[in-house]
Amino acid sequence: MLNVITLEEALSLIRRAFVPAAGKERLPLSRALGRVLAEDLTASEYVPDFDRSTVDGYALRARDTFGCSDAIPAILTRQAEVRMGEGADFVLREGCCVAVPTGGAVPQGADSVCMLEYAEDYADGTIGVARPTAPGENMIFRGDDVRPGKVLLYEGHTLRPQDLGALAALGVSEVSVYTPLCMGVLSTGDELVPPEAAPGPGQIRDVNSVLVQSQLASFGVETVFYGIVPDDEGRLRETVARALAECDGVILSGGSSVGVKDASARVISSFGPLLFHGLALKPGKPTLLGKCGNKPLIGLPGHPVAAFFVTELFVLPLLGWLGGKGGTPRWLTARVTENVSANHGRAQICPCRLRREGDELWAEHIRTKSGLITALTGADGYFCVERDREGLMQGATVKVFCFGEEEDGI
Amino acid sequence: MLNVITLEEALSLIRRAFVPAAGKERLPLSRALGRVLAEDLTASEYVPDFDRSTVDGYALRARDTFGCSDAIPAILTRQAEVRMGEGADFVLREGCCVAVPTGGAVPQGADSVCMLEYAEDYADGTIGVARPTAPGENMIFRGDDVRPGKVLLYEGHTLRPQDLGALAALGVSEVSVYTPLCMGVLSTGDELVPPEAAPGPGQIRDVNSVLVQSQLASFGVETVFYGIVPDDEGRLRETVARALAECDGVILSGGSSVGVKDASARVISSFGPLLFHGLALKPGKPTLLGKCGNKPLIGLPGHPVAAFFVTELFVLPLLGWLGGKGGTPRWLTARVTENVSANHGRAQICPCRLRREGDELWAEHIRTKSGLITALTGADGYFCVERDREGLMQGATVKVFCFGEEEDGI
Repeated sequence: MLNVITLEEALSLIRRAFVPAAGKERLPLSRALGRVLAEDLTASEYVPDFDRSTVDGYALRARDTFGCSDAIPAILTRQAEVRMGEGADFVLREGCCVAVPTGGAVPQGADSVCMLEYAEDYADGTIGVARPTAPGENMIFRGDDVRPGKVLLYEGHTLRPQDLGALAALGVSEVSVYTPLCMGVLSTGDELVPPEAAPGPGQIRDVNSVLVQSQLASFGVETVFYGIVPDDEGRLRETVARALAECDGVILSGGSSVGVKDASARVISSFGPLLFHGLALKPGKPTLLGKCGNKPLIGLPGHPVAAFFVTELFVLPLLGWLGGKGGTPRWLTARVTENVSANHGRAQICPCRLRREGDELWAEHIRTKSGLITALTGADGYFCVERDREGLMQGATVKVFCFGEEEDGI
Repeated sequence: MLNVITLEEALSLIRRAFVPAAGKERLPLSRALGRVLAEDLTASEYVPDFDRSTVDGYALRARDTFGCSDAIPAILTRQAEVRMGEGADFVLREGCCVAVPTGGAVPQGADSVCMLEYAEDYADGTIGVARPTAPGENMIFRGDDVRPGKVLLYEGHTLRPQDLGALAALGVSEVSVYTPLCMGVLSTGDELVPPEAAPGPGQIRDVNSVLVQSQLASFGVETVFYGIVPDDEGRLRETVARALAECDGVILSGGSSVGVKDASARVISSFGPLLFHGLALKPGKPTLLGKCGNKPLIGLPGHPVAAFFVTELFVLPLLGWLGGKGGTPRWLTARVTENVSANHGRAQICPCRLRREGDELWAEHIRTKSGLITALTGADGYFCVERDREGLMQGATVKVFCFGEEEDGI
């Protein structure tokens, strides 16, 4: 029974078939970079926590300046001076003003600040103000940025440097984050040899273990490698059982022989229901998903490029859901440099190079006859031709999902 | 003597003032993710390493099929069958063909493959071919993807999962990478308290230590924290000397008081030449760069938002150069949602939110009166208004440099 579904169906299945499974731990900010928040973080302080000036000048009551001008300045009494880093724990009297530096505290009673440029110190304890201020002018009020109770960061957010900085500013020194998932990874196939070995006739190197483990590591998921298992259903079942007992799920990467694929399906379904058997995706069709309790059992295609894209497009979203991680991949809009053919009833993934011409971004489809993994080293990202489209015309607009953050050339 | 320079001048100064300083180490692929290549990686094998078919069909000589048709098929002798994962160490005879699966080896002498659909097995040892093939059709030749001597990845490249996969496929199991730089980080100012402390009147939390250390960690640079040093020039000089002896450079984050700024400049210049004293950048003006031998001494602004952007725009490029890291930040093109004012003779950095409307990407400038660090938690990235522009009109196109890779909402 082959149950082939579209990628969209597979993605929507994730939330019906599994529940988030990650544990929680509390960490100091210094260890929380890149981790996923397990709580909404709510401010418990005012930022700023006092009314302050945004200019060097005189804090005053706006109404004391209404109607003043160069010709008829308002004359105010210089009541005090506030220095940087000092509080202003007094009340401004009517008809008075207070000298404040940029960032300095503004006393109660003042509602605006007149810039130094429009004030003259008569050196007799009075200040002449040549321009009226509007209430609120040149001031930030207590809580303008953040008030207690404001949710600053939501559960599921991956913590970036600027988030940690904001938390430090608010006096949050520890956060509750999800513990990383840990997936068991194994490869199966008599023809597989480790990357450091020279393949004999008919043998190929096990690329997928390094590839998939690196993709998961980049996503914040830990892995345990259970090795290359030969084409022996008993040993495969045994290894999967061990990985399943020790990890939050198992990723099985098959060799390309038909026998291996069948064995993977039988082994996966021996632990629980097989949720689908095949994705309508090119490359990526021979993908399997089973479950044992709330633990996913994923059978990846043997072809490394297919394994790479199925991991990007399906496995990482699945692990994101299990691991409590929010967010969606960022994409760019670009136009294809040439016609792209695709008419096989499956969504087609096209690795591409990006290049700019003026403001326009162009996606050049990288076509290698064999779609070998080396082609991805030259790719900036990929776009997708939907299942119901018979290819794309030159100049058509596509969404490009980018690899990594820093690359030359675009 | 204030020596204020533009960001462009500061960036071009980096390569004149410093030489790359990172050491090298050899690592297995499993530990090389995110590390920077210290060598060009050249293929030493052919990929694929044998001629292979891209379809299920019959490998043959194209000229044996020229002129054939449905009506007059070419009749070829079925010489052999190649199975998946087997070699094809024989030569195809004239007038013969060989059955091959997709991905299977094509024997010497064959120059194309006829798809099964256009062939008929007469079951008497002969095959009828109803369509001529062109030489090269449905085949990949040895080395089509990679030939020995082809440079696959260049020195300076940061290793991604797909790069490690390609290296595994080519039998490269160890790579030479640069060792991470290690920077000493310290904060200075009597008014600073650690993030976990409640600031008293006139005190502020030390945000920059967490912030800058996280930014460096995200960039692959290690840090040692030398604590908060009070406003005491002797102690500051002592701590900087220790950090300088133990690390590849020092980042000093000043408090905001004038006294601290002066002390930082004096301490930095006591170890070697002061290369600049001020950046024409808003925020970010009070930035200092000195050097001691080949080690940078960086004085960051005390204001966290300024420290954040100076680190992104100047410190990371500097550490990238010292650490052997290639690549430039990726940017998107977007249009500003409102007029942006800027007319102060300094390049102005504007944090922004991104949102899509159809194919169009819009950048909404996040204006907080105080430019507080909390504003950055809601930002997707930033754009820059150049020094010589008096702001931007609504709808103007800007380059947006994005934070992180995965975020909601765009």
